[in-house]
Amino acid sequence: MVKLAVDAMGGDHAPREIVRGAVAALQAQKDLELLLVGRRVPVEEALAGLSFPGGRLEIIQADEVIRGDDNPALAVRRKKNSSLVVALDLVKTGRADAILSAGNTGALLAGALLHLGRLSGVTRPALLTVIPGFNRKPFVLLDAGANMDARPGQLVQYAFMGRIYAQKMLGIPSPRVALLNVGAETNKGNSMVKKAFPLLQEYISGFCGNVEGTDVYFDAADVVVCDGFVGNVLLKLTEGFIRGFSSRLKEELKLASCGEAGSALPGAAFEQMHERLVGGTGAGGAPLVGVKGLCIKCHGASRARAVEQAVLQQAHPFVRLRLDDLFQKALRDMPRC
Amino acid sequence: MVKLAVDAMGGDHAPREIVRGAVAALQAQKDLELLLVGRRVPVEEALAGLSFPGGRLEIIQADEVIRGDDNPALAVRRKKNSSLVVALDLVKTGRADAILSAGNTGALLAGALLHLGRLSGVTRPALLTVIPGFNRKPFVLLDAGANMDARPGQLVQYAFMGRIYAQKMLGIPSPRVALLNVGAETNKGNSMVKKAFPLLQEYISGFCGNVEGTDVYFDAADVVVCDGFVGNVLLKLTEGFIRGFSSRLKEELKLASCGEAGSALPGAAFEQMHERLVGGTGAGGAPLVGVKGLCIKCHGASRARAVEQAVLQQAHPFVRLRLDDLFQKALRDMPRC
Repeated sequence: MVKLAVDAMGGDHAPREIVRGAVAALQAQKDLELLLVGRRVPVEEALAGLSFPGGRLEIIQADEVIRGDDNPALAVRRKKNSSLVVALDLVKTGRADAILSAGNTGALLAGALLHLGRLSGVTRPALLTVIPGFNRKPFVLLDAGANMDARPGQLVQYAFMGRIYAQKMLGIPSPRVALLNVGAETNKGNSMVKKAFPLLQEYISGFCGNVEGTDVYFDAADVVVCDGFVGNVLLKLTEGFIRGFSSRLKEELKLASCGEAGSALPGAAFEQMHERLVGGTGAGGAPLVGVKGLCIKCHGASRARAVEQAVLQQAHPFVRLRLDDLFQKALRDMPRC
Repeated sequence: MVKLAVDAMGGDHAPREIVRGAVAALQAQKDLELLLVGRRVPVEEALAGLSFPGGRLEIIQADEVIRGDDNPALAVRRKKNSSLVVALDLVKTGRADAILSAGNTGALLAGALLHLGRLSGVTRPALLTVIPGFNRKPFVLLDAGANMDARPGQLVQYAFMGRIYAQKMLGIPSPRVALLNVGAETNKGNSMVKKAFPLLQEYISGFCGNVEGTDVYFDAADVVVCDGFVGNVLLKLTEGFIRGFSSRLKEELKLASCGEAGSALPGAAFEQMHERLVGGTGAGGAPLVGVKGLCIKCHGASRARAVEQAVLQQAHPFVRLRLDDLFQKALRDMPRC
């Protein structure tokens, strides 16, 4: 039985959407037990009217909440009874196999480092997210925003973990690993990226060189590595672009001759695209890789549907495959660089 | 009369598309004289069949060509008779007011620094590009790829020049200047961005703080500053996204019930969006700001239409307004940081 600790108080729409999404996953997945961590009263209110197997759901009381604007490092030290820290303790003590949170990203990172620690060989954890390409071939992006000032050697650590994720979770036997850059030539990029290139070339099997923003959505690689600043910009630009195109197209079509009949049509087409694209760009849940134990970060704006997907598509298989053990095994064999 | 030196041999479709675009601009703009720099025979072949006022067009012979894969710094030193270096000399000696090139970006940058020099107060030039937002309100992005390892103080230089560009070229009296970042809070970002924030806050009037990728296309700011690596990634992601969405939507609509009639419709809608969006994302021409003299970089893949737009919408008004003088005046008053 997979035991998942859910930070019920983290996120823009917590606890209601978080709880409802987790319970929807509980109904869909028999091999799952939920530990909903947060203030009992609002969590019980969020559960009101939902039907679920009582034996597989427990509420764990936690009085405090870490806000989005709290200082991450201070908050995880001072708010020892916050839903996030209590949930992390459940993983640390083995009562839960994994934690899921849509709250303060920095606090999840700081809390995971403080309470769970790093896998040996990992100097900084990374947020990993799966982004579906336009031709329905997704790629793994890391770091999506955990480590703002990555060093060249850390991109090699990301590549090791990204390869294993692509193999086990996406079923790609020999993943193509690429470095996000501003040109295809080996001498392109900023100083960090220029140093990372030869390291990736030497240590990563399946390294296929640089990939540019123009090609990243077109199956240029299975795993794309970059520092957390660039990765987070990429992720948020993608979200902004999808939002804008949906509304812009409807506007354009109102100008077109077809009128309402026509404007309804691309709406439907966009619903599908929107789901496929936004579903993978953070909203579906991003594992924090490189820490001991399994941490899934959901987008702060996550609704129930996104939380449900994160539990079913990330947290559950992540635990079943024990990806953290596989990461550790690979990283142990990784040369220091 | 605005005299423009055109690097006729630079770009994926040179000289034909470059020459045809420049001549189209010559026909549209009476206050323009062209100096087409390159190998006489292929340039004359590209001119074949075009009608233009002979008195305002001259071919300047240049035997050599700097390729996209040439080492920029070496190429501009060794290929002294290349179309790019000869065109730069025309600006340096005052025979031309500005240069336009769709060739090797690094070579244009290196050549401009070597032959024209920097404005006083500028430590590194930047590529400036105008990106139309979804609500038809464009924003100025710099650096779009000239300086890969920007220092915090250089973002202040970009902000000074970007403000003036927005005022004079876009007619915005008090431009809102923002820092591209991963969050709205002041403590967000990598170490460079964290240092740049207080400098922008202190020295840039109209500084409105951080802007995230999710909001950058939605009129969050008039001028967005970032380092050249991140800016180039943003630019190319935008291009890739537009390309992907156009084809993907048509695909989606084939799946929809409407069939061919429907799939023709969004095609037309996308033509308009594509033109508006891609027209501004590099293809329309990006001024290299911070150098003495006026340099316009066109996208390497530019066709005649993009070159024509770059001449009419960037090069000509840039010269008429003498933006380089306005930049110099503002930068002279800029505090060193």
